[in-house]
Amino acid sequence: MTAADDARAIRSLIEARSDALRRKDVPALSRTGTRDITVYSLAPPLVSAGGLDGVRAWFATWDGPMGYELRDLKLTVGDRAAFSHALAHMTGRRTDGVETDLWFRLTLGFSKRGGGWKITHEHHSTPFAMDGSFRAATDLKP
Amino acid sequence: MTAADDARAIRSLIEARSDALRRKDVPALSRTGTRDITVYSLAPPLVSAGGLDGVRAWFATWDGPMGYELRDLKLTVGDRAAFSHALAHMTGRRTDGVETDLWFRLTLGFSKRGGGWKITHEHHSTPFAMDGSFRAATDLKP
Repeated sequence: MTAADDARAIRSLIEARSDALRRKDVPALSRTGTRDITVYSLAPPLVSAGGLDGVRAWFATWDGPMGYELRDLKLTVGDRAAFSHALAHMTGRRTDGVETDLWFRLTLGFSKRGGGWKITHEHHSTPFAMDGSFRAATDLKP
Repeated sequence: MTAADDARAIRSLIEARSDALRRKDVPALSRTGTRDITVYSLAPPLVSAGGLDGVRAWFATWDGPMGYELRDLKLTVGDRAAFSHALAHMTGRRTDGVETDLWFRLTLGFSKRGGGWKITHEHHSTPFAMDGSFRAATDLKP
């Protein structure tokens, strides 16, 4: 695999992940990551293991499909390790009637295993206000 | 450079970064990253460029040295790209008298440039409460 092949394969993997989220497709999403993935999620705790039960429960809080788009995607690729960072925009209606429209930061870590690329680390976040309120900044736009 | 050499060099770079933070040493900290670094910081905005004026102003809010330790550091290394993730523990007294004792998630992205490794991406965060308060979870412990 050339470096260009690796970059192409990782871009396809990122797009497959976004598409699985849009369709709320748990099996397709699970194929993008490894079993030993380390996830730093928007929600507590500090670290989660990317278990599918949690994803299923979260998908069930969305009424219909989810909007999920990445902006300013930057990819850094090596022979066996790679990482990407981007701003993610998640939109849609929840089952409680609330409209979600959230920009957050997304860093993904990739490893080449058995000749193919997989996601082994995800870090999702918003910053938080430093005015003493400690409120997560969920209303920022790029 | 063998893969073991690369891993050793990156661990040294991470330790040099932590040590520069502890000593509030702006030149030493700036040597660990590239000029085009993309930083997802604890504080807004969504993206910052790692400018040194911001770091200097932030260092000035600490009364004496800062405690800065990493736990559960995991490193994934390729020939030209690498990433790490860890839980960071930042402690110390601020000039306003407040004691900081914060655990957060830290992902670093590395690129090999001119034969040496540099940090090209940093992502720092806490999760936030999903109870409707949107309060950043600044009191979590690993």
